[in-house]
Amino acid sequence: MSLSALLPLFHSTETLESDSQTKKVSLLGTINGKNAILQLEKRPFDSKACIPNSNIIQAQSNDVYFWGTGSRSTEDSGDKQTTDSAGCKINLIYPASAAHIAKYRKHPLHMVIETPKAYQKIVRPYIETQKGDRLSWVRNILYHGQEVESCVKDSSYILLPDMKWDGVAIDSLYLVAIVYRNDIASIRDLKQGDIPYLEAIRDSILENVPTKYPIARDQLRLYVHYQPSFYHFHIHVVNANYTGLGQTILAGKAILLEEVIESLKILGEDGFSKKTITYGLSESHDLWNLGMKDYTQ
Amino acid sequence: MSLSALLPLFHSTETLESDSQTKKVSLLGTINGKNAILQLEKRPFDSKACIPNSNIIQAQSNDVYFWGTGSRSTEDSGDKQTTDSAGCKINLIYPASAAHIAKYRKHPLHMVIETPKAYQKIVRPYIETQKGDRLSWVRNILYHGQEVESCVKDSSYILLPDMKWDGVAIDSLYLVAIVYRNDIASIRDLKQGDIPYLEAIRDSILENVPTKYPIARDQLRLYVHYQPSFYHFHIHVVNANYTGLGQTILAGKAILLEEVIESLKILGEDGFSKKTITYGLSESHDLWNLGMKDYTQ
Repeated sequence: MSLSALLPLFHSTETLESDSQTKKVSLLGTINGKNAILQLEKRPFDSKACIPNSNIIQAQSNDVYFWGTGSRSTEDSGDKQTTDSAGCKINLIYPASAAHIAKYRKHPLHMVIETPKAYQKIVRPYIETQKGDRLSWVRNILYHGQEVESCVKDSSYILLPDMKWDGVAIDSLYLVAIVYRNDIASIRDLKQGDIPYLEAIRDSILENVPTKYPIARDQLRLYVHYQPSFYHFHIHVVNANYTGLGQTILAGKAILLEEVIESLKILGEDGFSKKTITYGLSESHDLWNLGMKDYTQ
Repeated sequence: MSLSALLPLFHSTETLESDSQTKKVSLLGTINGKNAILQLEKRPFDSKACIPNSNIIQAQSNDVYFWGTGSRSTEDSGDKQTTDSAGCKINLIYPASAAHIAKYRKHPLHMVIETPKAYQKIVRPYIETQKGDRLSWVRNILYHGQEVESCVKDSSYILLPDMKWDGVAIDSLYLVAIVYRNDIASIRDLKQGDIPYLEAIRDSILENVPTKYPIARDQLRLYVHYQPSFYHFHIHVVNANYTGLGQTILAGKAILLEEVIESLKILGEDGFSKKTITYGLSESHDLWNLGMKDYTQ
């Protein structure tokens, strides 16, 4: 028996797993009354011949941004037209600025080892330049109710849907808790005395999220970033089963909140200011050229 | 201007980023002489209508395993046939056993908090059952040269391509270093006195891998797993830019080797046996029913 003989006999009975990030699906079914498992995975784009040329439907456009769906038709030797019926999502930026191009170009990541000295010399002065006006959007959220759909407001933090989340699919639930304290730019500012503060926030998040969304407390992954994308302390709250967040959820960028608390217990009074931290840093990050390129692994 | 008017004018000049895992591509090009960025992403399968029915080509088969490629044809109302020309990869298991089905069915992950007590009571006895014959394949590699393509042999470890790696694409380089010491089942057995031992292995890996593969030492992510998939100490060595390893590379499963060493410096003489470790545990893992389900976050 071969694939081409077996597949027409396959009757699907259950979806065992479906992954919208990697475009894979695992189906349980039967062939001649016996169980069979069928796994399918979309093939990657051939970047030489992938530009959609049929069924192009624009969903929306805004300024230089256009998005929609489409598919790719090819004519084979016998002039028979074939179309990628499943199609693809399309984002077009036109005209694109140099900043757009820099953002979408892939930059290599380097593992850097940030000693307490490197922090004092390079990172801390950089963080100072990232405060002030650059954080006004955070203050707008905390004090001026800029985001209406905040889901939990506590005396010590505000929890709201992350911009990367569609707000609907629990599979990819992604919330962010921004604290009211403004003296914690990053974990580097956390000290032993902050343990009860962090534990209270952790407990509150784990208690409140399951009352707002259909997810159990033990299915939430709570973590912080180092380096974070903005220097006002915040905690990421993500469905523990979700893996589709690229570098931002990997060991070497994400640190579990529970691990932060455990580390504080043994780091001594001065906490994370005394720790050597290893993480992945993109060449496009300001810190790379500011001197972290001298601290590679 | 709309997408359908703009796309035919797009002339691609450079691939900014291409991700074979998520099936995305970002192209730089021009439209009417101005820069434009085009991002494409394959759409996920519609699990109700995805079984390939045309162009089915079997690559190989072995026992109950069949694999190859194929695509999906649909007939629209006007009897015009459209085909997903990009197609998909196909894996078929037939007949599939109950064990096959359990393996491919998605099991929810829970965040568990393993205290030193939980380790002694539940995990340590379990690890004892995972030694002996279950590790004979490791001994075959270490002492009987079972894997010919080992790339680095050192007095303290053997470094070989991981089974998940195709052995070719540096983008997804994945090696595993298995140590010769057999008294370290997991990080739980690492003590302060092991710091020089771990540092020597780290230095040797970082020095040797770039001589065998075209990759710089600071582009290697070195980490261990807790829980590991087998209880003989080993270190994962992966291209730092690669994110396509699902749960196995996330904070809450992977711990950077550098972080293991840093932790040993402050954990005290008894090392990781005294640490509380938080990680994601699947319901399908033996440890879940052996008692770790009483230690959820």
